[in-house]
Amino acid sequence: MVAGIIGATGYAGAELARLLSGHTKIDNLALSSVSFEGEQIQDIYPGFLGRVEYPLIKAEDVINSSDIVFSALPHAVGEPFAAACMERKIHFIDFSADFRFDDDEATYKAWYGKSYQFPELHKKSIYGLPEMNRQKMRELASKEPVIIANPGCYPTGASLGVFPALARGLSGRVFNPYRKHIDRCGPIIIDAASGASGGGREPSRSFHYSECADSIAPYKVSSHRHSPEISRNLDAMAKIGNVSPPLVIFTPHLAPMNRGILSTIYIPLSEKWRAAGGYSDTVRLPSAEIEAKTGEIRELYSVFYKDEPFIRILPKGVTASTNRVRQSNYCDISVHVDINGSTLIVITAIDNMVKGAAGQAVQNMNILFGFDETAGLEAIPMLF
Amino acid sequence: MVAGIIGATGYAGAELARLLSGHTKIDNLALSSVSFEGEQIQDIYPGFLGRVEYPLIKAEDVINSSDIVFSALPHAVGEPFAAACMERKIHFIDFSADFRFDDDEATYKAWYGKSYQFPELHKKSIYGLPEMNRQKMRELASKEPVIIANPGCYPTGASLGVFPALARGLSGRVFNPYRKHIDRCGPIIIDAASGASGGGREPSRSFHYSECADSIAPYKVSSHRHSPEISRNLDAMAKIGNVSPPLVIFTPHLAPMNRGILSTIYIPLSEKWRAAGGYSDTVRLPSAEIEAKTGEIRELYSVFYKDEPFIRILPKGVTASTNRVRQSNYCDISVHVDINGSTLIVITAIDNMVKGAAGQAVQNMNILFGFDETAGLEAIPMLF
Amino acid sequence: MVAGIIGATGYAGAELARLLSGHTKIDNLALSSVSFEGEQIQDIYPGFLGRVEYPLIKAEDVINSSDIVFSALPHAVGEPFAAACMERKIHFIDFSADFRFDDDEATYKAWYGKSYQFPELHKKSIYGLPEMNRQKMRELASKEPVIIANPGCYPTGASLGVFPALARGLSGRVFNPYRKHIDRCGPIIIDAASGASGGGREPSRSFHYSECADSIAPYKVSSHRHSPEISRNLDAMAKIGNVSPPLVIFTPHLAPMNRGILSTIYIPLSEKWRAAGGYSDTVRLPSAEIEAKTGEIRELYSVFYKDEPFIRILPKGVTASTNRVRQSNYCDISVHVDINGSTLIVITAIDNMVKGAAGQAVQNMNILFGFDETAGLEAIPMLF
Amino acid sequence: MVAGIIGATGYAGAELARLLSGHTKIDNLALSSVSFEGEQIQDIYPGFLGRVEYPLIKAEDVINSSDIVFSALPHAVGEPFAAACMERKIHFIDFSADFRFDDDEATYKAWYGKSYQFPELHKKSIYGLPEMNRQKMRELASKEPVIIANPGCYPTGASLGVFPALARGLSGRVFNPYRKHIDRCGPIIIDAASGASGGGREPSRSFHYSECADSIAPYKVSSHRHSPEISRNLDAMAKIGNVSPPLVIFTPHLAPMNRGILSTIYIPLSEKWRAAGGYSDTVRLPSAEIEAKTGEIRELYSVFYKDEPFIRILPKGVTASTNRVRQSNYCDISVHVDINGSTLIVITAIDNMVKGAAGQAVQNMNILFGFDETAGLEAIPMLF
Repeated sequence: MVAGIIGATGYAGAELARLLSGHTKIDNLALSSVSFEGEQIQDIYPGFLGRVEYPLIKAEDVINSSDIVFSALPHAVGEPFAAACMERKIHFIDFSADFRFDDDEATYKAWYGKSYQFPELHKKSIYGLPEMNRQKMRELASKEPVIIANPGCYPTGASLGVFPALARGLSGRVFNPYRKHIDRCGPIIIDAASGASGGGREPSRSFHYSECADSIAPYKVSSHRHSPEISRNLDAMAKIGNVSPPLVIFTPHLAPMNRGILSTIYIPLSEKWRAAGGYSDTVRLPSAEIEAKTGEIRELYSVFYKDEPFIRILPKGVTASTNRVRQSNYCDISVHVDINGSTLIVITAIDNMVKGAAGQAVQNMNILFGFDETAGLEAIPMLF
Repeated sequence: MVAGIIGATGYAGAELARLLSGHTKIDNLALSSVSFEGEQIQDIYPGFLGRVEYPLIKAEDVINSSDIVFSALPHAVGEPFAAACMERKIHFIDFSADFRFDDDEATYKAWYGKSYQFPELHKKSIYGLPEMNRQKMRELASKEPVIIANPGCYPTGASLGVFPALARGLSGRVFNPYRKHIDRCGPIIIDAASGASGGGREPSRSFHYSECADSIAPYKVSSHRHSPEISRNLDAMAKIGNVSPPLVIFTPHLAPMNRGILSTIYIPLSEKWRAAGGYSDTVRLPSAEIEAKTGEIRELYSVFYKDEPFIRILPKGVTASTNRVRQSNYCDISVHVDINGSTLIVITAIDNMVKGAAGQAVQNMNILFGFDETAGLEAIPMLF
Repeated sequence: MVAGIIGATGYAGAELARLLSGHTKIDNLALSSVSFEGEQIQDIYPGFLGRVEYPLIKAEDVINSSDIVFSALPHAVGEPFAAACMERKIHFIDFSADFRFDDDEATYKAWYGKSYQFPELHKKSIYGLPEMNRQKMRELASKEPVIIANPGCYPTGASLGVFPALARGLSGRVFNPYRKHIDRCGPIIIDAASGASGGGREPSRSFHYSECADSIAPYKVSSHRHSPEISRNLDAMAKIGNVSPPLVIFTPHLAPMNRGILSTIYIPLSEKWRAAGGYSDTVRLPSAEIEAKTGEIRELYSVFYKDEPFIRILPKGVTASTNRVRQSNYCDISVHVDINGSTLIVITAIDNMVKGAAGQAVQNMNILFGFDETAGLEAIPMLF
Repeated sequence: MVAGIIGATGYAGAELARLLSGHTKIDNLALSSVSFEGEQIQDIYPGFLGRVEYPLIKAEDVINSSDIVFSALPHAVGEPFAAACMERKIHFIDFSADFRFDDDEATYKAWYGKSYQFPELHKKSIYGLPEMNRQKMRELASKEPVIIANPGCYPTGASLGVFPALARGLSGRVFNPYRKHIDRCGPIIIDAASGASGGGREPSRSFHYSECADSIAPYKVSSHRHSPEISRNLDAMAKIGNVSPPLVIFTPHLAPMNRGILSTIYIPLSEKWRAAGGYSDTVRLPSAEIEAKTGEIRELYSVFYKDEPFIRILPKGVTASTNRVRQSNYCDISVHVDINGSTLIVITAIDNMVKGAAGQAVQNMNILFGFDETAGLEAIPMLF
């Protein structure tokens, strides 16, 4: 089976080529690159020498010779390729945001400044977060070629951390019949830090070594394009839990590391989930109560994700950390409750290039074709 | 004038020795170290060769030969030295938490597990955050030798970011006469990341290079000892603003960098400060409104801190970053409002070893002696 | 088949556990640890959760339940385990230096300060650099259980870079009949930099983050224990090339990175290999001549290593770099000639934990058992 | 006094602005930038806010309003500004290579590909390595305005490490009357590693965070433009020592750090300086002999540099390291002898932006004007 990658020389495309080269169901790759057409992928990435060696051809030729096509192009240029794949009756997995908003063109346009070129395609695309949409992907793929919108890196780490809390109603504003108003829990706050590979391969001031090494800084405060994607996901999750959609505040940071996204997520607990006696003003709850509540929620998370091959709910005493998922497709999740009992603090760690991009795309391909979901994603995290 | 440092070979003590060596009012240092008594400071820190060269003597001898004494010892061992300094009628500036809770021994004991040895000393100590207590420090020092509790690193970055918001009533729960209940704003959330020097000089697994490099992770979630110190400061600030004391959630992270603390602070805006139309459920406010509100609050912060020599309210378009305060005593603050208009996001950056420790101690000394407050703290941030 | 690891909780042992867990011929691991006996390996390395989960048992129990035993213990404590394995008739692969000097106890004692406990074992051990001793290992293993001295990390990178030059007589002092004296080429200089994982898991000042991050420094100049091991290897290689054994100068550096060893090796070219006109005093040779000579030597290296699965001679224009071999078992080699034509500059890059330790051990196991030599070592280098 | 900086927004220019802002003799700066003309320096470097605030004007206006002009422009564009300064009778300190080769236009052209525009200016320029040319600079400056070629970063670290060895005849090929031929010592090898700030402020692939972090690699092997500059310096030093000019091999590496250059320098000792019994083939000399020889040479280095304010010969047991000179103008030097007694190994560490660029320029200005040579350069190294 041949897998095609359009835009193979960017970081996400190259990581995908690396992962697919170790996938037992993939016999061959077909790679394209606008910037380096005519060269070989191993010229661009000498680390590939002897292992991943392919010419960089035209996108059209990739589509024509592949059984599935991944597009690792930037936003707003890949729709024609999606259309071509649909015509050729092969699945198309897109790394850009183009298909992440389904038919909600307004939101896409508000944040990405473009209109849809092929509006009808957006009616049949699926948001490829397996933990949320696996079943839907399987069903559709059994009938026809599909377009998968591979999730953004931040939205992956954020959404997976919040999903059980909303779907099981731990948070979310609900109508309070005694007070006769909506019990506002306050916003869900996602404070996240990414490694520099998230900025892509193209040199720029922000990711110039001397500008970002040995330092940490937020960027695009209140204005990052992953905000509406996260909101969208959380809205869908709240629906499952039958609670109101939460306000979301998302602040990305650039941390001086190559890979990884750590998300520290603050989720206001609804009244019935607060630790007993919690949320009063002056009390720091006894740690036993906090631990009990934390254990209860950890268990709930474990049960919720019990069949997920790439989610690890960390045991008591272990906090999620990006180096423990390095190069793997895992999303590690640790569960905490603040000392007042009012807020659930969920920490998630992913490798932004794997579960946050190329690995999740492989996982989605596995689902579409009915392969073992972990095929090609067997890497055990590098420890250091 | 001779400045004494007890515990001079730890990172904070050594940084203080470096700063004081460039202070025009200080003629000489007297340094002690339990671990390295009899050696020279430049043997321990060869970077000091030719510049900061002193024998490491006994703490008692430091006290007897100094005009002011700094203690950079760990918690719970410095009280006798404070007592000795009071007896000798010289000021004592303590880097530990021992005097940070004044006479609130209960809180100290709850978090540090020790009782006060000299309870009466805690009645006259002052919390040395100049921006909050400068006047009080001056007054007391004009009458008698004082004990200054030099603030913790995290509490410095957190408190300075929140101070104007609470003191001017932008946040804080207030009684809502229409709804007949307290308008809960939700907690103030402080999500902070520190460089590894915050862990001190003693090798340990957490700060072992291979365990923390190229990775980011939270630690002591909901249980860091700086939580009660931050709460205490925010309570005092809320009092000034005549609002209820806020709940505080504080999550420290270890970032792979040498120096710096970045605090990303989420402050729920009280109703009158929310952006017009804000806090409704589905609205992303027009950016013009958000910008206007942000500008208004930035101006308020600028006015609030206008006479502060070490606070820089960053102009529009600039976000606080630890590398822009590196090696300086500055606290950079950038002000943002989330897209819904509901929450003030304040980012502060300090060098944890300077404004977060040794630099602030020098600033406090300058205040006590009536020196120019910037003496010895003239370093312009290293740019890269 | 069960593989046993004694000392499994150190970095090299844990990396080996990670690699063996992905090896198709290994069904199970048996792991021991003195420090953590009774715990589970995944408690120590939470990154292993769900993937590498074993109790930490006694070394004796490891030996009794395994078909091959790896010892990742420090120097001078593993000999009894080697003896036990020989008795049980199973292969023993040792990560320490104990068996690297064969029966040359004098050198071992001079550098490691210990005598051999089981001298007879040292007569049958083999130095496990596959590129040099593969045949010998195979032969011996076909007859009896063997002891493999797994090479040191620095000696691996250094020796592989020098091997073709000495074995093919490009360097090395030879008797010059015209001048009636030995044509001294000067020493072979190996200037190498290692990542911090080389220092092991035990915290110490040298590898404390704040002491080594954002900085580079040599250490143990002229006194590192890998010097005699490198010399020994180069002597053996010189013998193959029929040239005099070279003097070796080896300087290790600690670079602020997790993994990798880069060796920059300066090899004086013997007269017939110098670029035409080279070594005169004032001439910088035309770049065409240097390029021609470089091409010739690169070709010689390529031919020399043509059947080696883990050596990559980099093409013209590509210089070896540690990030291009990250997490793989490759040794990348780039070949250069200085502008005067007098000196061959060979750059080698390995992952110190893989080809420099655990990966090479797996390669050696594959050789001993006749497995595909790349089994368990299929990882493609992480690109970033 | 007004100091002008042409090209003030590059890293070297900005670092110079930072240093000069703390120089007591400098009242004001005049700054130019082609790329950012019309903006303010603090817009480009927000770390300067409140401290270094100047408009970016035209180069011509800088020259017309300054008492000394520094040019931090790239190569081959600054000559007209030098000419203009000479006309205005003010000193000109150039950071580029344009004036580093005096009237040796051939070498300049061979390596930089350009001819001199104002050949006569190159007859009067001085190479600004104070330790070598201080006296010459003083004399010339007392008569007329001068052009100082501020040394390259690598040549500074390399030359200062070799200077005493050549000037005192420890190395260098000499005619051997007994053997009737030149006693070839072999080349002096300079293996150096630089931090990423050496690559300047302009983003490029080589200095893109994800391409160079957590990794080390050589670059421009045998072809770096600093080679001829180093050779030139060493030739001049050999002349002082009355020995033949050495062959030089220089290999630069990029290390994952912000600042600093570490040079590990291998200098073949001439016969009379070799450790007793040294250079024989099989001997590792007793450490006492090596230590004695090392001590002798360390003492020679100390005496040689005894009046130099910025050279620190490190005591026994301390090895040069870039973090110990961070942000200072020091060049730290540690002296070692290899175990065979044949080779002197000198390690030097400088901050590439200070002693390797802006600091050295300030030192040169101090010399030209007769200021205290350490004025503006008082910074004590940051320890971590």
